[in-house]
Amino acid sequence: MKTLAELGEDGLLARIRSRFSRQKHSTLVVGPGDDAAISKLKPGHVLVSTQDNLAEGAHFELAWADFRRLAHKLLRINLSDLAAMGAVSPVGVLVSAGFPAKAPQDWALDFLDGLAEDAARFKVPVLGGNLCRSQKVFFTLTALGQAKPAHIVRRSGARAGDLLAGIGPIGDAARGLADLKAGTSSGRFAKAFWEPEPQLKAGRILAEHGLATSMIDNSDGLMRSCDLLAQESGLGFRLSLARMQWEAAKADGEDYGLVFTVKPKDWGRVEQLLPQAYRIGVMWTERRSSARKPTGFDHFR
Amino acid sequence: MKTLAELGEDGLLARIRSRFSRQKHSTLVVGPGDDAAISKLKPGHVLVSTQDNLAEGAHFELAWADFRRLAHKLLRINLSDLAAMGAVSPVGVLVSAGFPAKAPQDWALDFLDGLAEDAARFKVPVLGGNLCRSQKVFFTLTALGQAKPAHIVRRSGARAGDLLAGIGPIGDAARGLADLKAGTSSGRFAKAFWEPEPQLKAGRILAEHGLATSMIDNSDGLMRSCDLLAQESGLGFRLSLARMQWEAAKADGEDYGLVFTVKPKDWGRVEQLLPQAYRIGVMWTERRSSARKPTGFDHFR
Repeated sequence: MKTLAELGEDGLLARIRSRFSRQKHSTLVVGPGDDAAISKLKPGHVLVSTQDNLAEGAHFELAWADFRRLAHKLLRINLSDLAAMGAVSPVGVLVSAGFPAKAPQDWALDFLDGLAEDAARFKVPVLGGNLCRSQKVFFTLTALGQAKPAHIVRRSGARAGDLLAGIGPIGDAARGLADLKAGTSSGRFAKAFWEPEPQLKAGRILAEHGLATSMIDNSDGLMRSCDLLAQESGLGFRLSLARMQWEAAKADGEDYGLVFTVKPKDWGRVEQLLPQAYRIGVMWTERRSSARKPTGFDHFR
Repeated sequence: MKTLAELGEDGLLARIRSRFSRQKHSTLVVGPGDDAAISKLKPGHVLVSTQDNLAEGAHFELAWADFRRLAHKLLRINLSDLAAMGAVSPVGVLVSAGFPAKAPQDWALDFLDGLAEDAARFKVPVLGGNLCRSQKVFFTLTALGQAKPAHIVRRSGARAGDLLAGIGPIGDAARGLADLKAGTSSGRFAKAFWEPEPQLKAGRILAEHGLATSMIDNSDGLMRSCDLLAQESGLGFRLSLARMQWEAAKADGEDYGLVFTVKPKDWGRVEQLLPQAYRIGVMWTERRSSARKPTGFDHFR
């Protein structure tokens, strides 16, 4: 199989260009191929920006990496961060990749396939990025979005008494990772690991209807997400989960759903608009009160 | 010396927060600490975005890396890309870093020092980013800027007969790299390698006065930059350099000045406004005409 050194940087750039030179998007003015990209935001909208990485040895191992799905994941985990800010419309992504010169060219070409697929699926233009030689494989993606200022939801807006709620799986990605390490790369759990669903629509509904008082994406385990939300809001929280969910909630996880808070009076509306939302607890004035629960989630502090 | 594993991710994040939580900038609405950052562009301005990497083994070696100056370089090479698009005002940067867990904490802390220094020097807010474990050190920076659409200069606008000109050193960074490999880390050339000057003011002047018909940042050697500009404009070019500059022009280089084209009638105005600008050649209708010159720059095609 041909290596990246044999394909050459120019060869790879030509493939990238042919893939991303005909993108159409209302915000896209200049795409890849110049020193920088140009995008046009809607009047009255603010710019929302986030960045995330996937690195060999930390997020994946070459033994079980699937570069097409890895591109899906890289895009989705960044879109998930945009979703967690409220009603955010993606404007574009910039993507960097580092590969060893001796890497099979398919690593890069599969990654490009995956990126093009999901960029089309989520209607987000690829604005540019960078390729470089690297002894270990790594990827960085920056996602840019736009939103009306009134439709931004911070981590810090929760009030005592607000209900704590979630959208998306709990623990599925962690099971998928275990499956992958054990040699199983198909099925629901592997999919949850590789292709988490960015909750852009749910984020939009919660923000546009003024329902979420605070929000975060669930990227490092449910308990950790609840803790960060509480911390930023200067509160504690109490969880009430079904017994089978406790273990999953306490574990590390890359589920990438949303965790958010809602005033009790608004819960009916949330259930109506987002039937997939579930309650997980309540925000509490005293941080100490949650520490008293013998559930083990002090561990995450 | 303490390792990053001993400092811990939370310890490092606390340092980052304390450094970047009090930034003030007209565009900055929400900085680091939420799922994404929020910036506010001026009405009628477009978003300019670019991304670049520095990776161990490709751009630097641990034997001679200086992480403070490496942060300077990473920021500046991205600002240089913004400068090459015309009159662009920086809006913010997102910065990712991958370090081995066993790395001395000073690698990260020195990098943070350098980032904070140059972010202040160039008045650009640090919006966010990401930290991850990685077996080899790598960095990615995304720079965001804003510009009036009329003040954007593309690579593709050159016309036959336009003068080809430059701003910034030729070959200094390559000499600096050679010095560093030989153990000399101080002096003008090492500085040119680590701390190239992003030509934001020159880019602004050339764009606002309508002087540059095309522009590119000189990131991979002067000849390569001229060739890319010519290619994007569908033209060839002829160079007329002093003899001592030929070798430097043909070599690889990371000088990061600007290469641009100007109508002959406008050259006087360029000299007046930018006395540091120098002429290097002329754009030519037939690409073949430049290929006939026995200067060796076919090599870069």
